[in-house]
Amino acid sequence: MKLYSYFRSSASYRVRIALALKGIAYEYVPIHLVKGEQRGEAFAAVSADRLVPVLEVGGVALSQSLAIIDYLEETHPEPRLLPREPLARAQVRALAQTIACEVHPINNLRVLKYLSQELKVDDGAKNAWYRHWCRSGLEAVERQLSQLRAAHGPAALCFGDSPTLADCCLVPQIFNAQRFAVDVSGLPLTMAAYEAGMALPAVQQAQPSACPDAEG
Amino acid sequence: MKLYSYFRSSASYRVRIALALKGIAYEYVPIHLVKGEQRGEAFAAVSADRLVPVLEVGGVALSQSLAIIDYLEETHPEPRLLPREPLARAQVRALAQTIACEVHPINNLRVLKYLSQELKVDDGAKNAWYRHWCRSGLEAVERQLSQLRAAHGPAALCFGDSPTLADCCLVPQIFNAQRFAVDVSGLPLTMAAYEAGMALPAVQQAQPSACPDAEG
Repeated sequence: MKLYSYFRSSASYRVRIALALKGIAYEYVPIHLVKGEQRGEAFAAVSADRLVPVLEVGGVALSQSLAIIDYLEETHPEPRLLPREPLARAQVRALAQTIACEVHPINNLRVLKYLSQELKVDDGAKNAWYRHWCRSGLEAVERQLSQLRAAHGPAALCFGDSPTLADCCLVPQIFNAQRFAVDVSGLPLTMAAYEAGMALPAVQQAQPSACPDAEG
Repeated sequence: MKLYSYFRSSASYRVRIALALKGIAYEYVPIHLVKGEQRGEAFAAVSADRLVPVLEVGGVALSQSLAIIDYLEETHPEPRLLPREPLARAQVRALAQTIACEVHPINNLRVLKYLSQELKVDDGAKNAWYRHWCRSGLEAVERQLSQLRAAHGPAALCFGDSPTLADCCLVPQIFNAQRFAVDVSGLPLTMAAYEAGMALPAVQQAQPSACPDAEG
């Protein structure tokens, strides 16, 4: 298995966490997003959508972090990253997608670049954009966690005491939020789940600073 | 089962297609996004993230269209919306997520509103924004379909000849693209899959103009 990744890519970080949690060995292939390597010829031959992460497996280049993690869950079921019960599975997926579909896409590198380069938005307004979508998304996460706690009782991580797909998404999002100085006050359940996630050895192993292509 | 939906919401449309394909009856509860009903007190009591669609089932309000469709797939497995084989499942999921995570979130109503109201972007630049992200996402879809055809042979729909999760996402996205006059030339596989999807009775039944809250 080969993972095309960029150390700071939040979507790549999700997959690295899932691989580490499941104890799956892989070859790390760095793609430098800031240098634009994802648009180069070599990577275009691998990836139809020119995005990281890509997991190369069985002669196929799988894209989209959540699709990759679902594939890993189906082919390497232990430890499980989704609860067994369908409603609970859906709630964990919804938490993950609140981050992956409502926050991250609006704030990723190419969107921020478009704001600067095409719309001539200055850095202050660009940072305000990042913080607005990140904060409102995290508030939705906090409300979802609160509903989950009300229904299922206290939990150390996003759902229960074992890491799930939701933790694979939450940790990288908060990591990024902190880089952009997003206000994370008043989000006690979210931040407690993040801290508990960060303490997991698999997350430590997957974090940006532990990647072969890490920069200071 | 109760579906909170807005006729023009592309994410709601995805779920309506899945429900229709599986022949599941449900109560339709309209939430008027343009009037801001998703931020009102009544809906806030239902939905943690103040977004449609929400599927109320078993006393739980499920959010996020892809999580809802996965739930439907797990609890009403026939007809299947995902192939059986894990790699193929992941490819169908990746197609769906290319739309749901790379195109739609950047172009939805609240983002377009922020561009106008906070960043004072004029209508021309706002439409260019929509078209840019939609077109580049659809080009990624076209490349993915081309890879799938090369590996699996011709197909009437996104994957094979039966509708999948990918069709549930593609049809509403193209429908929206046409509303915004996005250039869809040079995307033969994508447009053929869209036309075949639109011809399905379930899609006809789920389309915006067939919703109880449809406006002219």
